[in-house]
Amino acid sequence: MTTPPHPPTPGSSLPPLAGGTHGPDALRPLVATVLDALASGAAERRGRPLPAGGPEATAAHVLAAATPVLPEHGAGAGEALTALVHSMAAGAADPGHPLCAAHLHTPPLAVAVAADLAASALNQSLDSWDQAPAAAALEALVTRALAAEVYRAATPGHAPSPDALVTTGGTESNQLALLLAREAHARTGGGVQVVTGEHTHHSVTRAAWLLGLPEPVTVPAPGGTLDLAALDDALTTLRGPLLVAATAGTTDTGAIDPLPAIADLCARHGARFHVDAAYGAPLLFSPRRAHLLDGLARAHTVTLDLHKLGWQPVAAGLLAVPDTTLLAPLEHTADYLNADDDTEAGLPDLLGRSLRTTRRPDILKIAVTLRALGRTGLGALVDHLCDSAQELAEAIAKHPRLELYETPTLTTVLFRPTGPGDTPLPDTTVAAVRRTLLTEGAAVLGRARAGGRLWLKTTLLNPHTTPDDLGALLTRVERLADTLVEGSTPR
Amino acid sequence: MTTPPHPPTPGSSLPPLAGGTHGPDALRPLVATVLDALASGAAERRGRPLPAGGPEATAAHVLAAATPVLPEHGAGAGEALTALVHSMAAGAADPGHPLCAAHLHTPPLAVAVAADLAASALNQSLDSWDQAPAAAALEALVTRALAAEVYRAATPGHAPSPDALVTTGGTESNQLALLLAREAHARTGGGVQVVTGEHTHHSVTRAAWLLGLPEPVTVPAPGGTLDLAALDDALTTLRGPLLVAATAGTTDTGAIDPLPAIADLCARHGARFHVDAAYGAPLLFSPRRAHLLDGLARAHTVTLDLHKLGWQPVAAGLLAVPDTTLLAPLEHTADYLNADDDTEAGLPDLLGRSLRTTRRPDILKIAVTLRALGRTGLGALVDHLCDSAQELAEAIAKHPRLELYETPTLTTVLFRPTGPGDTPLPDTTVAAVRRTLLTEGAAVLGRARAGGRLWLKTTLLNPHTTPDDLGALLTRVERLADTLVEGSTPR
Repeated sequence: MTTPPHPPTPGSSLPPLAGGTHGPDALRPLVATVLDALASGAAERRGRPLPAGGPEATAAHVLAAATPVLPEHGAGAGEALTALVHSMAAGAADPGHPLCAAHLHTPPLAVAVAADLAASALNQSLDSWDQAPAAAALEALVTRALAAEVYRAATPGHAPSPDALVTTGGTESNQLALLLAREAHARTGGGVQVVTGEHTHHSVTRAAWLLGLPEPVTVPAPGGTLDLAALDDALTTLRGPLLVAATAGTTDTGAIDPLPAIADLCARHGARFHVDAAYGAPLLFSPRRAHLLDGLARAHTVTLDLHKLGWQPVAAGLLAVPDTTLLAPLEHTADYLNADDDTEAGLPDLLGRSLRTTRRPDILKIAVTLRALGRTGLGALVDHLCDSAQELAEAIAKHPRLELYETPTLTTVLFRPTGPGDTPLPDTTVAAVRRTLLTEGAAVLGRARAGGRLWLKTTLLNPHTTPDDLGALLTRVERLADTLVEGSTPR
Repeated sequence: MTTPPHPPTPGSSLPPLAGGTHGPDALRPLVATVLDALASGAAERRGRPLPAGGPEATAAHVLAAATPVLPEHGAGAGEALTALVHSMAAGAADPGHPLCAAHLHTPPLAVAVAADLAASALNQSLDSWDQAPAAAALEALVTRALAAEVYRAATPGHAPSPDALVTTGGTESNQLALLLAREAHARTGGGVQVVTGEHTHHSVTRAAWLLGLPEPVTVPAPGGTLDLAALDDALTTLRGPLLVAATAGTTDTGAIDPLPAIADLCARHGARFHVDAAYGAPLLFSPRRAHLLDGLARAHTVTLDLHKLGWQPVAAGLLAVPDTTLLAPLEHTADYLNADDDTEAGLPDLLGRSLRTTRRPDILKIAVTLRALGRTGLGALVDHLCDSAQELAEAIAKHPRLELYETPTLTTVLFRPTGPGDTPLPDTTVAAVRRTLLTEGAAVLGRARAGGRLWLKTTLLNPHTTPDDLGALLTRVERLADTLVEGSTPR
């Protein structure tokens, strides 16, 4: 049928759509309004990485800008976009600012954000082919390509047909990894016992709780990575189906577990081997550093998350498996989406690709970024940031008033100020330094406990950050620590 | 600290970011490229709601446009955006086209899509305050306002402090509803027994599986809604903690369960009362139709999903509860995100607002839409589409060669072509009509089984669709059915 969709009725009071033939023209002025409001909001922050004044001040600003939430009569698109987008930009913790460097909270690339606009405008939904014909094909292509990267070094037979599911992030990927393990042993009736380290991401324990699995057994990680002797002991002692959840890039320090040795232990004890590489997986793109992930290709499941060291706007998670057939436990039928006769007639069945039903194509921005930058471009960004972290660590090590925790593996650097005469400061002061920087709107630093003490955490994900930026940050931390120490000293 | 972020280094090979002071300028040309590619891709579809040729043809086009997925050297932002966005638009099932009317697959409003661009660009993450200062405040404000709408008619005491969680859609909302029920009874040890209808969304059963709950007990719904006598019997027979999952707007027919009577039965039997109002909740905005949701305010949990009858791009799900304290089972601690001393010092603790960790502010587009359209504007859209569905049903009822299933409640209309001389056609022909329309790229219609037969399903969500559009669709269905019947008759 070739009836063209008619243009919007002239004078119609119906608000314009993003799709259809006329969508792009409707979007143009509104998108211009958004970009203006993003710029004016960022300017209102006056060069700060986050607004000054702390939670109460920010909440008051938002309350003033955003009420009434549901007015009786609409304010119109222009007014609503200007007011709310300006308010969000003015009150953002901006990962594009060099001094917003706390978390695995990435500054997204402009190209990825632009691609994400297309995902919103087209609003394809990946729960059935007839809601996402091309997007479903693209997702199949890109997930297989990324899974092939993960399993590039697999031994013959281990990864016959690598595949990956798209998720909302590492948390959902870890959840799916545990679910696949649970279901692989569902017939034998026993729940899977998860074995983690004390450094493992909290989402693994939360996933076990969600799925009704026993609480994970936690193995020590005294040096920031899984202790192999303790893991061996645990796997020897425990009975029933086991899953070891290792980490390639911990949240606290960026450390990578000894994957080959863990893979050996899993093989010897018949345990499933999961690797949470939400942070570290993009090392695969770097010829200089891919070796840090040796052993990854032996995993049964691998968590990736390109909204960390992949510069994607949220969400861009993946769970890779060495063979498509391992995803069978997620197969699911809903007649309105994948009736048997439709599937037999050749309509792709998408419902087993997620626990979600409606699902936007987050794969589009990933695909655009991979193509725009290429393996070389991505690898160069990874190396640039890892090198920057090394340089920052060296600067801290040389700094007379700062202490470095350890040489970084990835892009996370832990440090803490020292007191006068190189005396250690209490953890409470370190925590207060962080909160004061936040309240002043001066810097966003994280926190991590390591070696029994609290540290400030810098996670470098912004490739535009310079050594001068970081030098200024270190000076600021030093001076603030002095101020806090003086303030607590009776005069 | 007022060090302004420096501009990108001139001649730098680093790709530009979306954030920071320079992000909006970096985005402008890329967004223009995206809008051009959306327009050219839609034009390539030649006025069709989806590409002609079926899954294989679409997959071949995508393969040609999108390989290599990860080139050794990058193609650059412009080339990557043009190639992939054009390909996605050309191969979309476009809910902005009047004849794409199968599923609860909404054509998003341009204003909501523009707002979503800001969410991607700012890339705030709602797992900690220092990744989303203003966005966290906005989410708190808007979720409470929407929950207050849901519980507007609550009896005194039932809804002291309405609140809502933001989800990826109705599926996750239903999952959370079951999880909250499970945890409310966790101390007594027994799993919750979910009671659903045969018309209940598949996600309820899937959630029970995910959470390790017993398989739901299914009550008949012969008229498309829960049979009250059968529900009473089930609640009388079953033992242990019970949860009844009712539906306000079924996926197949848009029917609304008798909520007041179900609420009475739940109260009498001490069962929790969940309402999946993913489709129907926006009736609350319509003074003419809000009464269809009488009884909703008695629920313990309510699923909303504004990427259906709320014209949001995916995702825009919510789960409303009558009191914030009911969300306590989701409380969760991860020291790097919500350490006790930070929480005591006044940093908001966000981790208990979701099972996800990293989480983009989907609330922004919702907030912008509520403000732009107001209650009156939203209610008018709801009424316009419900009225259109009534008119379509009347046109089908009068049509000599079409059969109407029933008068619609919401915006879903089921119908089927009849054979020569008003004879019923076999279900296989009805299914073939749908698949042929898909393969021709002529229309996207859904399917539903009701009253023992298969029907074509039209879900009206596009306010720009006219009676003429739908008239043309009916004619096309009639002629196609004739062709298929003739084709199957030996000559």
